[in-house]
Amino acid sequence: MGATVAGLGHGAWTQADWAQWGLSDWKSADVTVEKMLDFAIQPDVIVHCAGSGSVASSISDPYQDFHRTVGSTLEVLELARLHAPKAAVIFPSSAGVYGIAERLPIDETAPLQPCSPYGAHKLMAEELCRSYAANFGLSVALVRFFSIYGAGLRKQLLWDACQKIARGDTDFWGTGDETRDWLHVRDAAVLMAIAAGHASHDCPVVNGGVGGGVTVREILGELFRCLGRTDEPSFSGSARSGDPAHYIASVKNAALWGWRPEVAWRDGIREYASWFKSISS
Amino acid sequence: MGATVAGLGHGAWTQADWAQWGLSDWKSADVTVEKMLDFAIQPDVIVHCAGSGSVASSISDPYQDFHRTVGSTLEVLELARLHAPKAAVIFPSSAGVYGIAERLPIDETAPLQPCSPYGAHKLMAEELCRSYAANFGLSVALVRFFSIYGAGLRKQLLWDACQKIARGDTDFWGTGDETRDWLHVRDAAVLMAIAAGHASHDCPVVNGGVGGGVTVREILGELFRCLGRTDEPSFSGSARSGDPAHYIASVKNAALWGWRPEVAWRDGIREYASWFKSISS
Repeated sequence: MGATVAGLGHGAWTQADWAQWGLSDWKSADVTVEKMLDFAIQPDVIVHCAGSGSVASSISDPYQDFHRTVGSTLEVLELARLHAPKAAVIFPSSAGVYGIAERLPIDETAPLQPCSPYGAHKLMAEELCRSYAANFGLSVALVRFFSIYGAGLRKQLLWDACQKIARGDTDFWGTGDETRDWLHVRDAAVLMAIAAGHASHDCPVVNGGVGGGVTVREILGELFRCLGRTDEPSFSGSARSGDPAHYIASVKNAALWGWRPEVAWRDGIREYASWFKSISS
Repeated sequence: MGATVAGLGHGAWTQADWAQWGLSDWKSADVTVEKMLDFAIQPDVIVHCAGSGSVASSISDPYQDFHRTVGSTLEVLELARLHAPKAAVIFPSSAGVYGIAERLPIDETAPLQPCSPYGAHKLMAEELCRSYAANFGLSVALVRFFSIYGAGLRKQLLWDACQKIARGDTDFWGTGDETRDWLHVRDAAVLMAIAAGHASHDCPVVNGGVGGGVTVREILGELFRCLGRTDEPSFSGSARSGDPAHYIASVKNAALWGWRPEVAWRDGIREYASWFKSISS
């Protein structure tokens, strides 16, 4: 899109790394107003992806999860209020704010009843966005992402599964029948870019998913095949605390913005497996 | 009730002051896990009254308001999770979480649509209480207080009005027809003590008010008479940002706990005026 992109967050990226991804600058630091001011730029769009990304760690350390998710959102909104009041602020929220869904697919008006600290903190960060948009006239948009994945992701189901398979372990938690709505990271990025054009003091919210569910058994089966295994994953049968069994997004509202996901999940899994093989060999 | 009471918060109280109010200890400090541990006691009940109390200051400094209200609540809940998991935690929330009410009186199932940062931060603190109660088994109860007042309160309408009257100013913001549900601080304290017996991992919530509205014109008229003035207050006619015009609580749920307010508002205003005269003379 021709934008100049500067980034801030946790992670020790070399200049060669971040330059390869098209960034003009990268700072490894906590997200604070002070650090953001160090860039000495007037941003048009702020994409606030910082924050926690793990239900399990939100249960083992809710205090840290709160600060990463809610605390960083406060810093971003304060930066915008005081120093960049015309910037569009995009906050990627999570399907975790819905908790156990009463109906599938889940649309944006569904009850917000998070069932983990992770989901509760995402909901609090959303409330903060709504407050700053309504009370201070900031332009904000929220995208509630379901399960994002893509080559380079070194956590969550696909990464954990690749690690296990590499050491010959084919046993997994859960029943295998859990469904998730898997969205490729390129589709997610396009949705956030589109959301920037719709950010307003009304703080609109759309779901980010493909609008269909794939079982964990299907996903892992495909990953097994792509990694050259001829057997199938086996499942413990017991669920993990704080993880709802089923998530499927209604994506009608994102479609009204002209967005449509383009990566088929089998293609995305194949790409992920290729990337994993390339870093393991 | 025979309890030993230790207190922590902002405010430079002398020992003579706090001892007079029945406290066995008082520390003037920010509410942090570390400071609470300094008491070296195992609390049965934690009444978390710390936090911001002003819509106006939440608009002028939302960052500070967030830290006072939401940040202090996180500290209290972490203390309970790690060091006092059996304590009942009582959080006095605010009618501000409802925002502009669609129906009066407001019951606890009304939409939560705060219209100021103050209200948004109180709602976020409630979410945090619900999360810690549900996810970590803490016993928590929320009381959404409407307008609390009583002798000793050195802020808000009655205090500002007494200051104005003392300097001969009888002009007030607003129309005078705004209604508030005024609850005397002794009734509020009794409700919080009762709430401690109902705190659970379901995090019940009740409104705290008398269940009726009194206009600002009536309240100030009574205050004028109690302070010996024979004229009436006058009003600018324009409303303040972030202040809904009408608040009246439904208090059926608190009544189900056996609570009932006992101080009539005219008696409470008379007591407040007497206190103000005693400190001004």
